[in-house]
Amino acid sequence: MSVAATTVTIIAERMLQSQITRMLDETGATGYTVVEGSGKGHHLTRTHERPSIVRDFDIVRIEFVMLDGDHAREIAQQIADDFFVDYSGIIYITRAEVLRADRF
Amino acid sequence: MSVAATTVTIIAERMLQSQITRMLDETGATGYTVVEGSGKGHHLTRTHERPSIVRDFDIVRIEFVMLDGDHAREIAQQIADDFFVDYSGIIYITRAEVLRADRF
Amino acid sequence: MSVAATTVTIIAERMLQSQITRMLDETGATGYTVVEGSGKGHHLTRTHERPSIVRDFDIVRIEFVMLDGDHAREIAQQIADDFFVDYSGIIYITRAEVLRADRF
Repeated sequence: MSVAATTVTIIAERMLQSQITRMLDETGATGYTVVEGSGKGHHLTRTHERPSIVRDFDIVRIEFVMLDGDHAREIAQQIADDFFVDYSGIIYITRAEVLRADRF
Repeated sequence: MSVAATTVTIIAERMLQSQITRMLDETGATGYTVVEGSGKGHHLTRTHERPSIVRDFDIVRIEFVMLDGDHAREIAQQIADDFFVDYSGIIYITRAEVLRADRF
Repeated sequence: MSVAATTVTIIAERMLQSQITRMLDETGATGYTVVEGSGKGHHLTRTHERPSIVRDFDIVRIEFVMLDGDHAREIAQQIADDFFVDYSGIIYITRAEVLRADRF
């Protein structure tokens, strides 16, 4: 049996990893997955320093899944507001279904 | 041209990786992608040992895509039943479209 | 506030990474994320050499997000046509919503 859920994916500079995961801990996210990668794009450039330059970056991809879609969106918005005004990154939301929803 | 498909994403402790991929081989999954990462959450704690403690984990993110959504769900359910009663982890399903569906 | 977007995920042999990302740069993709992993499956076998053998592969998972779904699909199709006739791999598309859409 599966239950509707919301996934949130955060693509950020790797230097922000501990700040973002600390915030996820504080907001009550029940878990998250962190994968390291690389990336490129003006959306990964610090806006104050170099507004439109395409650069390569060390990035982290942080992902979490929640049954409560509204809560997931609130957390995603808070991350966008707290981190991605000064630093760049992207956050996207998708619909999913989870199995073993009793774990959440 | 794209065709409707189902993606299954499995987040598990890394120690389960070979057991899960072996099972995917046996169930006829035509391929999968494995990425290593880290994670946190009570859903990643072994339920028998420490039921509600939030811990850091070495995890794997295993992903596969199938045209046959029912088959994908059956495999996902079997993994949940076989591995995620004693060990924790999450499995979620999303809808997607694939290109070059003749490959599947 | 979130805006509808399209994500494209490319699973390819790692040896194709620089060719694919160079093509993404040329097509005007505003950014992408690259994660290294491993994989298995006949869809990851070079079709000319060994048409149906299941093999293990070093892979890259390349992901990008675009507001313009038609453009995203065009790029995805071009990658499929240019790379995945001779080499194997999969490309799938999902619907998402992005926060801070002004970044795109």
